[in-house]
Amino acid sequence: MQARQVILSHRPTGIAQAGDFEIVETRLPTLRDGQILIANEYLSVEPAMRGWIADQSNYSAPVEIGSVMRSLACGRILQSRAPAWEVGRVVCGWFGWQDLAVVEADSIVRAVDEPDLPPSLSLGVLGLNGVTAYIGLSKFGLPREGETVVVSSAAGSVGSAVGQIGKILGCRTIGIAGGAAKTRRCLDGFGFDFAIDYQSDDIAARLEEFAPGGVDIYFDNVSGPISDAVMEHLAIGARVVICGTASITDWSRRPSGPRVERHLLVRRARMQGFVVLDHRDEQEAALAQLTEWVRDGRLKYREHILDGLEACPGALSLLYRGENDGKLIVRV
Amino acid sequence: MQARQVILSHRPTGIAQAGDFEIVETRLPTLRDGQILIANEYLSVEPAMRGWIADQSNYSAPVEIGSVMRSLACGRILQSRAPAWEVGRVVCGWFGWQDLAVVEADSIVRAVDEPDLPPSLSLGVLGLNGVTAYIGLSKFGLPREGETVVVSSAAGSVGSAVGQIGKILGCRTIGIAGGAAKTRRCLDGFGFDFAIDYQSDDIAARLEEFAPGGVDIYFDNVSGPISDAVMEHLAIGARVVICGTASITDWSRRPSGPRVERHLLVRRARMQGFVVLDHRDEQEAALAQLTEWVRDGRLKYREHILDGLEACPGALSLLYRGENDGKLIVRV
Repeated sequence: MQARQVILSHRPTGIAQAGDFEIVETRLPTLRDGQILIANEYLSVEPAMRGWIADQSNYSAPVEIGSVMRSLACGRILQSRAPAWEVGRVVCGWFGWQDLAVVEADSIVRAVDEPDLPPSLSLGVLGLNGVTAYIGLSKFGLPREGETVVVSSAAGSVGSAVGQIGKILGCRTIGIAGGAAKTRRCLDGFGFDFAIDYQSDDIAARLEEFAPGGVDIYFDNVSGPISDAVMEHLAIGARVVICGTASITDWSRRPSGPRVERHLLVRRARMQGFVVLDHRDEQEAALAQLTEWVRDGRLKYREHILDGLEACPGALSLLYRGENDGKLIVRV
Repeated sequence: MQARQVILSHRPTGIAQAGDFEIVETRLPTLRDGQILIANEYLSVEPAMRGWIADQSNYSAPVEIGSVMRSLACGRILQSRAPAWEVGRVVCGWFGWQDLAVVEADSIVRAVDEPDLPPSLSLGVLGLNGVTAYIGLSKFGLPREGETVVVSSAAGSVGSAVGQIGKILGCRTIGIAGGAAKTRRCLDGFGFDFAIDYQSDDIAARLEEFAPGGVDIYFDNVSGPISDAVMEHLAIGARVVICGTASITDWSRRPSGPRVERHLLVRRARMQGFVVLDHRDEQEAALAQLTEWVRDGRLKYREHILDGLEACPGALSLLYRGENDGKLIVRV
């Protein structure tokens, strides 16, 4: 059986472009014990992929040149030599950017057992993005009712979930996003109390207006000047959750910025980096809660679906240009 | 009754110099209900004083021009109109740089009830410095046996206590200090496992050698390039406790440095600012433990005592030049 695969063909220094990937046809091996064959239906495109393909220190080993691009995906089991996983089940996991995948059963993250919901949600709000938002905010942000939560990249799939969860937990929420359409979506689509357009607003002035008592929780997906502005407005005892650093494309040049030590000291604040993959034990409970909220209509999501494996190579640069309108997914 | 007082006469922009203070004689008011008259015996000189006299955002209101310099001190009660505090008791508290002080009873931090120990310890290892070290390390550093603790300003009164407490708790300890005499004192006087001289050593190379598994806890008293070097060596899950920022004299110019967000994310690390004055409830337990360790000889201290109120105005700049040899105290 032949699989079509998206291979990493060059290691990019900045954002991966379409030319850094190649689509190849590969003959799949026959299944060995413990393996399954999956027909992928949806492939995920994540901001974190930049880190996965970079050569520098990161929280997972880099994707090797010539390998299938690492990715979460969801699909249906076509063949199985893993007793726990029957043919026909829908599953999501680390199946890569390819139409058919032969993987070890432990590549499965979970069975997708919500027939009333689109299976693609397992890649977004009911997947890594939603769980990231839930665990990052609840475990590291420690929100209390009435506190002010600021989220960067607030129209994105993690940020939009953070804002909505913050709201469900009784917080005042402020989303920061780029452009009028995205800030509008923060307000109307995702129910943020306030939105700031970093492309046209004075972030400091808006924070002063929307968060006069200071920012109790900053859920940061971007780093850079947006975050620098938020740091100036931390409340006493603030928690800054570092989830991503999307605004800075190249950390190998050791970017500089305003020192944070004095802010952290004077405001008795903390900054905490967190990687959702460290918290597997908590994912099941998080997903149960998120699924309930999605079914209730309290947790909204938006998907941007590209069609065909051919869309994969250009998808990452599209994502980093901020041109996606919702969780970016490729339908195989 | 006349008191001799050290008054803040100018607001310095950088480090306070002797000329920023003035010594005056003032007629003391007669005691009102709830007040006490104290004959100060020892006055404290603290790195944090720079913050107390700065005009910028800080964790306490600035000392006003023309006021007695804010300071911890210890002395004996000469008169009392506060029922809980009898004449003759030795107390320490916020009595200021003056020989006689009329204060409200709530300015007292504690009674000094260790007749077997020098009362001046209530200003150092059995005072704010020791309690800072204990609470900062135990509550925010969260040390576990076998972990590696790095301390900046390690020969200082907070840093030397942090290193010794880390050692008592079973950690590997690395002190960073300036000059051969201070690094020698870290090793011989305070029992650090390793010491790094930031004036002559390659900090990164020494950390690589002394902490091959990375730094689990960084207790930071200095900020600046020393801290930047330590940040590069954080272990996964590291805790950085921001206790002071002594290496940077002027934060009003918003100093820049290498961005920390990516380090914190990739190493799942956190930076936490902390101010000991927020933790009054925990001071009693901390002091009990510290006193036991001092009596056991497990917790060593060193004092640098200047004589006479006249020494106060120049004491802060002496401290910031790093010329003190132990906790800096003025004997009245």
